[in-house]
Amino acid sequence: MKNTFGNNVSVTLFGESHGKAIGAVVDGLPAGIKIDTDFIKSQLTLRRPVGSISTPRVEADNFEILSGVFEGFTTGTPICIIIPNENTKSKDYSEIMSKARPSHADYTAHIKYGGFEDYRGGGHFSGRITAAIVAAGAIAISYLKQKNIHIGTHISRCAGVDDVAFGDYESDIDALNSKQFATLDDDKAKLMQQKIMEAKTQGDSVGGILETVVTGLPVGLGEPWFDSVESVLSHALFSIPAVKGVEFGAGFSISDMNGSAANDCFYMDGDTVKTKTNNNGGINGGITNGIPVIFRCAVKPTPTISVEQQTVDFKKMENTVLSSGGRHDPCIVHRARVVVDSITALVICDLVGK
Amino acid sequence: MKNTFGNNVSVTLFGESHGKAIGAVVDGLPAGIKIDTDFIKSQLTLRRPVGSISTPRVEADNFEILSGVFEGFTTGTPICIIIPNENTKSKDYSEIMSKARPSHADYTAHIKYGGFEDYRGGGHFSGRITAAIVAAGAIAISYLKQKNIHIGTHISRCAGVDDVAFGDYESDIDALNSKQFATLDDDKAKLMQQKIMEAKTQGDSVGGILETVVTGLPVGLGEPWFDSVESVLSHALFSIPAVKGVEFGAGFSISDMNGSAANDCFYMDGDTVKTKTNNNGGINGGITNGIPVIFRCAVKPTPTISVEQQTVDFKKMENTVLSSGGRHDPCIVHRARVVVDSITALVICDLVGK
Amino acid sequence: MKNTFGNNVSVTLFGESHGKAIGAVVDGLPAGIKIDTDFIKSQLTLRRPVGSISTPRVEADNFEILSGVFEGFTTGTPICIIIPNENTKSKDYSEIMSKARPSHADYTAHIKYGGFEDYRGGGHFSGRITAAIVAAGAIAISYLKQKNIHIGTHISRCAGVDDVAFGDYESDIDALNSKQFATLDDDKAKLMQQKIMEAKTQGDSVGGILETVVTGLPVGLGEPWFDSVESVLSHALFSIPAVKGVEFGAGFSISDMNGSAANDCFYMDGDTVKTKTNNNGGINGGITNGIPVIFRCAVKPTPTISVEQQTVDFKKMENTVLSSGGRHDPCIVHRARVVVDSITALVICDLVGK
Amino acid sequence: MKNTFGNNVSVTLFGESHGKAIGAVVDGLPAGIKIDTDFIKSQLTLRRPVGSISTPRVEADNFEILSGVFEGFTTGTPICIIIPNENTKSKDYSEIMSKARPSHADYTAHIKYGGFEDYRGGGHFSGRITAAIVAAGAIAISYLKQKNIHIGTHISRCAGVDDVAFGDYESDIDALNSKQFATLDDDKAKLMQQKIMEAKTQGDSVGGILETVVTGLPVGLGEPWFDSVESVLSHALFSIPAVKGVEFGAGFSISDMNGSAANDCFYMDGDTVKTKTNNNGGINGGITNGIPVIFRCAVKPTPTISVEQQTVDFKKMENTVLSSGGRHDPCIVHRARVVVDSITALVICDLVGK
Repeated sequence: MKNTFGNNVSVTLFGESHGKAIGAVVDGLPAGIKIDTDFIKSQLTLRRPVGSISTPRVEADNFEILSGVFEGFTTGTPICIIIPNENTKSKDYSEIMSKARPSHADYTAHIKYGGFEDYRGGGHFSGRITAAIVAAGAIAISYLKQKNIHIGTHISRCAGVDDVAFGDYESDIDALNSKQFATLDDDKAKLMQQKIMEAKTQGDSVGGILETVVTGLPVGLGEPWFDSVESVLSHALFSIPAVKGVEFGAGFSISDMNGSAANDCFYMDGDTVKTKTNNNGGINGGITNGIPVIFRCAVKPTPTISVEQQTVDFKKMENTVLSSGGRHDPCIVHRARVVVDSITALVICDLVGK
Repeated sequence: MKNTFGNNVSVTLFGESHGKAIGAVVDGLPAGIKIDTDFIKSQLTLRRPVGSISTPRVEADNFEILSGVFEGFTTGTPICIIIPNENTKSKDYSEIMSKARPSHADYTAHIKYGGFEDYRGGGHFSGRITAAIVAAGAIAISYLKQKNIHIGTHISRCAGVDDVAFGDYESDIDALNSKQFATLDDDKAKLMQQKIMEAKTQGDSVGGILETVVTGLPVGLGEPWFDSVESVLSHALFSIPAVKGVEFGAGFSISDMNGSAANDCFYMDGDTVKTKTNNNGGINGGITNGIPVIFRCAVKPTPTISVEQQTVDFKKMENTVLSSGGRHDPCIVHRARVVVDSITALVICDLVGK
Repeated sequence: MKNTFGNNVSVTLFGESHGKAIGAVVDGLPAGIKIDTDFIKSQLTLRRPVGSISTPRVEADNFEILSGVFEGFTTGTPICIIIPNENTKSKDYSEIMSKARPSHADYTAHIKYGGFEDYRGGGHFSGRITAAIVAAGAIAISYLKQKNIHIGTHISRCAGVDDVAFGDYESDIDALNSKQFATLDDDKAKLMQQKIMEAKTQGDSVGGILETVVTGLPVGLGEPWFDSVESVLSHALFSIPAVKGVEFGAGFSISDMNGSAANDCFYMDGDTVKTKTNNNGGINGGITNGIPVIFRCAVKPTPTISVEQQTVDFKKMENTVLSSGGRHDPCIVHRARVVVDSITALVICDLVGK
Repeated sequence: MKNTFGNNVSVTLFGESHGKAIGAVVDGLPAGIKIDTDFIKSQLTLRRPVGSISTPRVEADNFEILSGVFEGFTTGTPICIIIPNENTKSKDYSEIMSKARPSHADYTAHIKYGGFEDYRGGGHFSGRITAAIVAAGAIAISYLKQKNIHIGTHISRCAGVDDVAFGDYESDIDALNSKQFATLDDDKAKLMQQKIMEAKTQGDSVGGILETVVTGLPVGLGEPWFDSVESVLSHALFSIPAVKGVEFGAGFSISDMNGSAANDCFYMDGDTVKTKTNNNGGINGGITNGIPVIFRCAVKPTPTISVEQQTVDFKKMENTVLSSGGRHDPCIVHRARVVVDSITALVICDLVGK
């Protein structure tokens, strides 16, 4: 299905950057999850631009839950959450309506929808739609916490600067989840932000890598072929517009290892089966093995930049140049972090089932 | 769904390594595709072990089409292809039935299926099931060729040795598709095979990276959220047991680029919109842009090795050691190549629709 | 999926009778369908209660399109339509919150959702949610008209009174689609309404049968097993809460015919293949044959009645009696008519594909 | 999906009447169900033609389980069952290959598949494919019995003769499940068979109605909109080629009742909530209420008859006549019975989930 994902728990996304509202319908979450409005708000805040390193478009993200919640708890029926669009300066985009912004969906959308697409600010392809994922995901995260399943993501690399590696997962997750710019080492965050500011000064942008850990998963989630844990997580993660790579465990670096180094040997830790290493990212044969699931997403640099770019006018079918005057971020890696957490939570809810 | 994937064109997999047969049901391929039996055979040959660098388990892979084909053409109704298992020495595996082979699904399957799993040779989790994907994919490849869509994959890296980069896609694809060990540079193939033999001598195994290109795709395939081209391709690719990473275009390396370098500028090539670079892998906003789709899969080293490994006996719940006496490959990267091509073809058929 | 239906064109429903709003997300409709706001309004009016034979709950049904429409045309991306709830007197229902209204979902919802269900007015099970189907369906109907596919439904029987049979489909459909109480013979409508008023006076309710015809369908829609036209239409139609039977063509009466009478003989009408009779409802082997598709839905009498009824209190788990003080309809057959048209249109759009 | 149905438990059908084999893949049944080969055989026998009232095409229906079963128990992975075609006299059908048999899929298949369809004996549209449903359903029935869920179907009406009504469900189900011609009253069976023989003598055929009861279902199965129990059952039942109507509880006759008569009043039977009547067929708001689920299927008379029929030659596009020389049944109602049981069992397994 096009804008719907999941079986037991499904999410349907709708909305355009400059339309009336964006939103999501989440179906299949169990009845009885307490809705923590403050938590949803704080998650949305984590996605919002911060300070000088971000776009000046700051919206209140005043979400509204239209259905599926009664007297503060989920009812078990579909939850529709909408976030009205407020600060939408459509004029900014009028100039470029037929100039294809490089690495954006302007051109592909134009061909796919035959000119009927809402071109303003990327329309339905805008990163703004991820706010709906974050609002929906916040409820999923609350539910998983009850089941002692925790998710945390750090900016493992940004603008060429590496963060330190995960240490103790539980405390790291706790620390990360309150940070607006989520690194494990705060000094690395400062370095990254310096680099981001440098790019901004040049009218340019930077990318990075997000690393996520999920703890507390039972053994046995996922299905052997086609609904492996890697399959369903990557499906959802690659829906995030800027993600161009997903790897689990040692990921691409496992391809340089020998089998004897790559294999995660099992051992008994009391009554529990564990592995000494985690090169397979907590997944064997597509099924969770009880060890934390770990994966990384490559996030490309924001395609919208101020530097003049060569492109085409897809109505006139001729070459042209583009100088983007619109508001934009020199980096979205830190903002994408909570989107990854949210979408991961929704997928995990789907895998856990009822 | 568990062992079924796709909407317009769907594939359902079944079978176990040492059961009667493995197979696939492909539904939704158009009527009228000519069945090229020799091509299916040759594709299966590409997946089979070769020479000294592979497992001694060599099966004829005598596929049989049970349905969906009439007088040499597809009928438009479901095609069931089965491949009987012939050379199945179950005794090899009896010793290890409760010893979890590291990085295999023995332990996760045991917990998931409560001891009812067919543990012989990995059962339903065996790489052998990919033969069914290859047979089914061969029909998909034939169909796509009619539509001038071509798929080629090379071993971009193996055992630490890099192949050269793609040059002219069309001629490279032609050359690759007849090679048993598919590199663009034959000298690199020799080096890789040397390294594989070294690992084999040590009772060890190696991994690698496969790089795939798909040419001839129209603009507009894929859906914005959740069924982006990256989403559906990665979903299918991560079903291949050994794949631990998938990246499109520049992939993980894009995260180190500035936006001005990463963006693929559009230009007019006569009447056609093209891009000067292809860091986005032919996909903008999840939708094909008419430029070749390019992606890479990280293939882990074969988990089955002769070296003694520490593990647990999951019935006795105690530590133990494992010396695998079974037949195995020191490398499966070259064999996984045709599996990647095949699954890609099936996904593309699904995206193209009827 | 739970509250989502369709493949190429899918509909997701959300909302509760007394919540903030109800609504639908329609995904997959082509770009470029002109949105006829007046038509959507008039369709919603057809679903609304009329005059003395209906519930006093009359809402404006002021729908709002939040997404998927730009400058008056569909964009090809998901359309979210919401209808705020306005006239919701929750107090009416407070008395009965643990008394299971017979033939309603109060008890089953209570067990299914563990007491977290929104019990007010039937919550998510309320017939009110069908207003969202009607709004969404109106767009589908507009689209199908462009393709010369027309849908019409008449009250074929109500309160024991039969309407006349279809004559000329095209003119009948035209006539029906503007009627608030849609019979082919206006005198029959009067008789039916008399019977409805009699039932109302007695605090009781009546049911009926709706008969639908779809003209202009191409040959070849539907799939042989599991997605036969009968399968997908009945799936959708049985989602309408009051529908307890669905039959195609001669339906149940075909079971008393001999094959020689039941078979629809083909003949050439100029260059077109037609059938002399239509006992199969325009469907052979699950596939449309180019003849109008005809089906009937049995609509049960409104379960909410004023007559005192015996039931249980499912919290106290004891027998009790129920006198419904809430607003209700003595008949919903005439209101269900446009719901059947709407859901049929959405299913046809799904079958027609892009 | 085209030939696949179900979410938690899915069934995929393949095969043609005169191809190599027909079969089914069942995915999602739990591990550990004991395979009762004799029961599968006896179920297949119930579907096979009997004595003088049926077609002379009698096949052994020697099914083979290719996957998903190990040491006599289901493994939890996909079960592929095939039934080779043995007694296929293709020559019988060669004459009629371009004459559309009335009420068959010859013409619709020809248009849908552009002439590539396997036209022999109805190809993929043949009732023979239901043998695969029966084999797969037998495993589902075995599983449901373990959970104390029982399914029984009787020929409620055939050739205009009514059977008696259900009495005690459990004993009736027991009695029915061993009968080749399943009526509750054996005298009615004799009368029906007389009528069938009369039709046969005239080269004609008859239809009937099957009534099914499912006992032991928990409260709470099904989903409010789109996956109501009625929706998913009817979806599956209408896949059976001869079914033209499906009704639940009082079905079409409920449309003539007043609400006070139609409503099923609840009462306490000890600690259990029950209803005094069952006009809603055990389903409220699309959700099971713990009372037996009851439904009826209208089965049309066998379309293949010996009487000469008018039709068209769809290759020559001209009128012609057809005298069917092929083997055929004067009635399939009694044979369809076990198909209804089987498909019902598969749907119930899907609803019950893991």
